[in-house]
Amino acid sequence: MSIPLTSTQKAVRWHPPSYDIRVEDVPIPQIQHPDDALVKVKFAGLCGSDLHVYRGHAGVDKVHISGHEFIGEVVALGSSYGPHSKGRAPLYTTLKIGDKVVSPFTSNCGECPVCRLGYTARCPNGKLFGSPTLEGGQAQFILVPYGGATLFNLSDPNIWPNRTPTTALEDSSLLMLADILPTGVFAALQSLSHPKVQTVLTGKPWPACLLPSTTPMADSMTMTQDDKVLTVAVVGLGPVGVCTVVSLLDMLGARGQPYRVVAIDLLESRRQKMRAVHDKIDVQGKGLGEFVVCAPDEAKVVVKAWTQGIGCTAVIEVVGHNDALELAHELVRAFGVITSVGVHGQPQLPFTGREMYNGNVSLDFGRCPVRAMFPMAFELLIKRQDVFGGVGQPASLIDNITDFKQAAECYRAFEKGEVGKIIFDPWM
Amino acid sequence: MSIPLTSTQKAVRWHPPSYDIRVEDVPIPQIQHPDDALVKVKFAGLCGSDLHVYRGHAGVDKVHISGHEFIGEVVALGSSYGPHSKGRAPLYTTLKIGDKVVSPFTSNCGECPVCRLGYTARCPNGKLFGSPTLEGGQAQFILVPYGGATLFNLSDPNIWPNRTPTTALEDSSLLMLADILPTGVFAALQSLSHPKVQTVLTGKPWPACLLPSTTPMADSMTMTQDDKVLTVAVVGLGPVGVCTVVSLLDMLGARGQPYRVVAIDLLESRRQKMRAVHDKIDVQGKGLGEFVVCAPDEAKVVVKAWTQGIGCTAVIEVVGHNDALELAHELVRAFGVITSVGVHGQPQLPFTGREMYNGNVSLDFGRCPVRAMFPMAFELLIKRQDVFGGVGQPASLIDNITDFKQAAECYRAFEKGEVGKIIFDPWM
Repeated sequence: MSIPLTSTQKAVRWHPPSYDIRVEDVPIPQIQHPDDALVKVKFAGLCGSDLHVYRGHAGVDKVHISGHEFIGEVVALGSSYGPHSKGRAPLYTTLKIGDKVVSPFTSNCGECPVCRLGYTARCPNGKLFGSPTLEGGQAQFILVPYGGATLFNLSDPNIWPNRTPTTALEDSSLLMLADILPTGVFAALQSLSHPKVQTVLTGKPWPACLLPSTTPMADSMTMTQDDKVLTVAVVGLGPVGVCTVVSLLDMLGARGQPYRVVAIDLLESRRQKMRAVHDKIDVQGKGLGEFVVCAPDEAKVVVKAWTQGIGCTAVIEVVGHNDALELAHELVRAFGVITSVGVHGQPQLPFTGREMYNGNVSLDFGRCPVRAMFPMAFELLIKRQDVFGGVGQPASLIDNITDFKQAAECYRAFEKGEVGKIIFDPWM
Repeated sequence: MSIPLTSTQKAVRWHPPSYDIRVEDVPIPQIQHPDDALVKVKFAGLCGSDLHVYRGHAGVDKVHISGHEFIGEVVALGSSYGPHSKGRAPLYTTLKIGDKVVSPFTSNCGECPVCRLGYTARCPNGKLFGSPTLEGGQAQFILVPYGGATLFNLSDPNIWPNRTPTTALEDSSLLMLADILPTGVFAALQSLSHPKVQTVLTGKPWPACLLPSTTPMADSMTMTQDDKVLTVAVVGLGPVGVCTVVSLLDMLGARGQPYRVVAIDLLESRRQKMRAVHDKIDVQGKGLGEFVVCAPDEAKVVVKAWTQGIGCTAVIEVVGHNDALELAHELVRAFGVITSVGVHGQPQLPFTGREMYNGNVSLDFGRCPVRAMFPMAFELLIKRQDVFGGVGQPASLIDNITDFKQAAECYRAFEKGEVGKIIFDPWM
């Protein structure tokens, strides 16, 4: 490799106890394990969930490089890489120095029982980038453990439509694959896959909606056309929330599913972004449904009117706060599902068992297994370049590309909600 | 109708504040609404969830007739019944005086948007039998609101295999359709229908398990045979828990699904019942899996050994207490699902949002929509007469049929766990 062992790099580091971001010279990491890959970072994102550590809410006291979203180029590989590793996770055989890669926000071994099921975000050997246990991506170089399982090789022609990597996709757009876009797709997919949503999606009552059509069923009344309209609320319109809405509308369009979707945020700036994105996208099934962007109180009125007071079949919570869960609970119907992809804190859940029983509520929590979601997210990224391409436009998910000198100010302004999504160019 | 308007009946009534059960003479109810049906009760069950009111935990202070499980014969019908009601819920047209009926533990209108989707347990017009808002089934007669939608007509030959009602099914067996058997089937069905279980059931990793096989997918490792073995824990082996296990094993057998199931209870008497039932049933796929009955602490060891410490893919909680939910959480894997059909109380859920996020936990709560589950439960009841037939045997779900004079003592002994399931014969 071409990097001198002794050289240093610039990195954005968090210092305890809170709100302390510094750009510092630190050593360039070196391959330590045969499975390691060293990546030269092209862009590194600043993500809403970075704020948990930033604010000192994560119970962390170790100085570390921040950031869990990064895209870059492979500059060094451990000894596991090469034809002799056939039978291991596929990239150990095929990844080469010079390949363009994007990484999930967590590492994963790819070979344990958890990874084999695609639950890569909870690999027992995995770690979160930009945490005390694994240095983050807001640096010029980053060491990726289990690189042959963790990374997604954007230079592999097999992953591209027509097997031709398109240079039309900017790296700033591809960076969305690290977290926000797969998490949005994951949220929408989980929500639409839940058993309690299948009544509306299949047009068949419970439990016929879950069973082969030959099963003898109850002598129930026929569902009306209105019963087959899916009502969904998305709570939180940060970048992941917007990706969730885009993915959800895409999936509903692909199914020809009539819908009513309300997208909710407290901040007008985020609502404006959501409206701009929605105006711009040419969703296949846009004509299939109604779409409203509003504040929480207005959303309650909208959902009540839409559903005769029954509530949403599905609510997707993309905030990670009990206030958002409580709003989701207010909006969800009996026999509805709340899908939460927000990073939650230490407070106890704000529900009693009786409330959950009385509402037949279902709840799905947790982190997106980005590695497993890459193909679906990548397909949507290519399809929806009208929204996922570009920087700094009203409908862009990325507001600004900046240099590390602005890092402390960026964290401050992002935490205050004064700016949207920012990405860093470590070489600018 | 043949019942004099002035006559009285015997009924088991609960008196506030708690632990006060009396058998009293009360008026026989009369048809009040055109949709009402009056049923002469043949048998009425005593159910674990009756104990919430019995113990004074339900915030109730009104004297009322207890019990929400009953089977009987139609003795009077309101004016809605007859050929003129074609287009309404089907039984308004077909139900006749003299028909044998079983009722869900809640009434439902059958015609609102909630009922049309099969979510009958949460019909906004429905009420719980044996509660302050609706007199219960532990009486000689009971008035059933929305009888044409609520009741299940066991005299209808169309619901029987070969369209011949079999007299081999005892009424004590058919009474299980009121609550415990449909609730067990509901619990098992919900659990096996959850998206997070589809990896194991389909043998395809997330998210391929949820998508058409043509979708481009991640280059993941092949799942092993052991990855395709479903591990399930059932927490709580009261009558509903036993029905859950029987239904679960039946569904797994029908799919040819390899499994490991652990059935858990604190009480040795319940574990013995579960073992006796399991020994007796000739489950289609008994050879497909392992089945262990044990106490909670032993279950933790068993699950750890079975899953290399990863945990159960699905846990079904049939208790309705935070202790049971906490045990379920200890047993469930990351990306697993806890299905709770227990009636929970007022305490806040014993989990933090962080715990749920960190474990990618899913939770399903709520009451069985018995009306919608009747056909599935009925099919299982007929198929599994080896367990669901008979009274007072080691493998019987019903331990005793008794008269109302024993009611107060039955409640006391049942509440103390000294006896298993009891049903009352109001005419004995």
